[in-house]
Amino acid sequence: MDVMTRIERALQTALARTGQPGCPPRLGQAMHHAVFPRGARIRPRLTLAVAAACGEDAPAVSDAAAIGIELMHCASLVHDDLPCFDDADTRRGRPSVHRAFGEPLAVLAGDALIVLAYQTLAQGAAAQPLRLGQLVLTLGQAVGVPCGIVAGQAWECEPAADLAQYQREKTGALFAAATVSGAVAAGSEGEPWRGLGAALGEAFQVADDILDATSDAATLGKPVGQDLAHARPSAVCQLGLDGAIMHLRHLAEEAVDAVPSCLGQSALRSHILTETLRLIPQELARTAA
Amino acid sequence: MDVMTRIERALQTALARTGQPGCPPRLGQAMHHAVFPRGARIRPRLTLAVAAACGEDAPAVSDAAAIGIELMHCASLVHDDLPCFDDADTRRGRPSVHRAFGEPLAVLAGDALIVLAYQTLAQGAAAQPLRLGQLVLTLGQAVGVPCGIVAGQAWECEPAADLAQYQREKTGALFAAATVSGAVAAGSEGEPWRGLGAALGEAFQVADDILDATSDAATLGKPVGQDLAHARPSAVCQLGLDGAIMHLRHLAEEAVDAVPSCLGQSALRSHILTETLRLIPQELARTAA
Repeated sequence: MDVMTRIERALQTALARTGQPGCPPRLGQAMHHAVFPRGARIRPRLTLAVAAACGEDAPAVSDAAAIGIELMHCASLVHDDLPCFDDADTRRGRPSVHRAFGEPLAVLAGDALIVLAYQTLAQGAAAQPLRLGQLVLTLGQAVGVPCGIVAGQAWECEPAADLAQYQREKTGALFAAATVSGAVAAGSEGEPWRGLGAALGEAFQVADDILDATSDAATLGKPVGQDLAHARPSAVCQLGLDGAIMHLRHLAEEAVDAVPSCLGQSALRSHILTETLRLIPQELARTAA
Repeated sequence: MDVMTRIERALQTALARTGQPGCPPRLGQAMHHAVFPRGARIRPRLTLAVAAACGEDAPAVSDAAAIGIELMHCASLVHDDLPCFDDADTRRGRPSVHRAFGEPLAVLAGDALIVLAYQTLAQGAAAQPLRLGQLVLTLGQAVGVPCGIVAGQAWECEPAADLAQYQREKTGALFAAATVSGAVAAGSEGEPWRGLGAALGEAFQVADDILDATSDAATLGKPVGQDLAHARPSAVCQLGLDGAIMHLRHLAEEAVDAVPSCLGQSALRSHILTETLRLIPQELARTAA
């Protein structure tokens, strides 16, 4: 089974709870809307690639780790889109959850997806229960206080804050959890994998800056030119387009160097280089080669 | 150390994450506002009472189980109070979190408290890691899909639903998790304790109906007479005040009968009878005696 099929099936299995007796139908629909159809699934693919490189011995645990990360990512998008934050009308080319289902169900769907991430971890880790604690803590570190994505978002409510830095930290936190969780799910030590995740998070942010400057809204499924319009710091504004592409290439190489020693080290390194450059359109990536 | 001191200290320890470097100060303040000063702490006291009755052997695990339940309860109050739900100005006699800190921080504080519940469980269960999976699943069952408090709240967004029933289920879900988690934290089987939690949840709901009909807002810290004003089904409307008090007494006895066989069965039974009747003012409880 290819990795995308594996991820979609595991997500379907996790969301199957919404079809069980007693679940309010519209809540289940709102949760599905937040998770399907698929995005790029960059984070769970990263978790599974790291687990494989570490000699994955418990696929159900890796699946749970990967899906836990993705559900948390989807939950954060639902809440970030709410009227009191970005007030976004669209996401992945479709109405945002609160536009499609109303604000109450968007709040509740986000809450339920956060909880579902942990339900999924606990159920998936049943065969290797000693790995659960670290997986729960890794996810919490990426999402909660003091420095997870919720905290990153909350810096927007502070009178003085370096928002650009916190935005980047916010992206990096979940990427770091993706790599650390992949290692933990495979029975390896997690912390040596944090640097790889952080480097990839930064690369992803630069790629996002490049797409914001070069794509059209139809391709991207969300408004473009937002960095320039909102005078947000962006790698493209700071370095120019070519400079940003070179920077992405540099970050990809940093990420490759950050892969810890493991069984599948060389395969993972080439996977990471390819995947990072695939974040931007091929014709731009060629500039970087 | 008395049980209330124990709970407050464990909550302070859990919330200490908000004082760590990198945490946005106002998010930390909003989370504290949601959790302190103390409410009655009925659910965590119940968890600890059950753990004790089961021959508690790992106090850090019982603390984590109790605090996980209470943090989840506080999170649900913060989100329930939001303008898109109850739009409540006050809670426990003080401004609700969104009134005090704004809507964005109320959404984020609720999210962070949900995550903190799981962080607390994972950290507290480190000494007994094989108990963590069941604790995580028990909490998820009480809060998430298909039938937890989030789902209960979401029934308000369905075109046709028996809201009274779902409100009661919503209350019952967290009480059931409180008793089940107490047993699991002490290394006992959890499911035999679900009936006790459900009975106590119903008793709590009836007590709440009685207080809504008989208290004043200053004593209760929230508006009173809401059941009559909103034509909500209430034990007092259905049975009259004396009937509701008799019903509460009956439910307390049902709860006493639902205590499974355990080391501290008889102590727990008298604790439950006393505590349930303490939910309403003494002069009313005497009517029931």
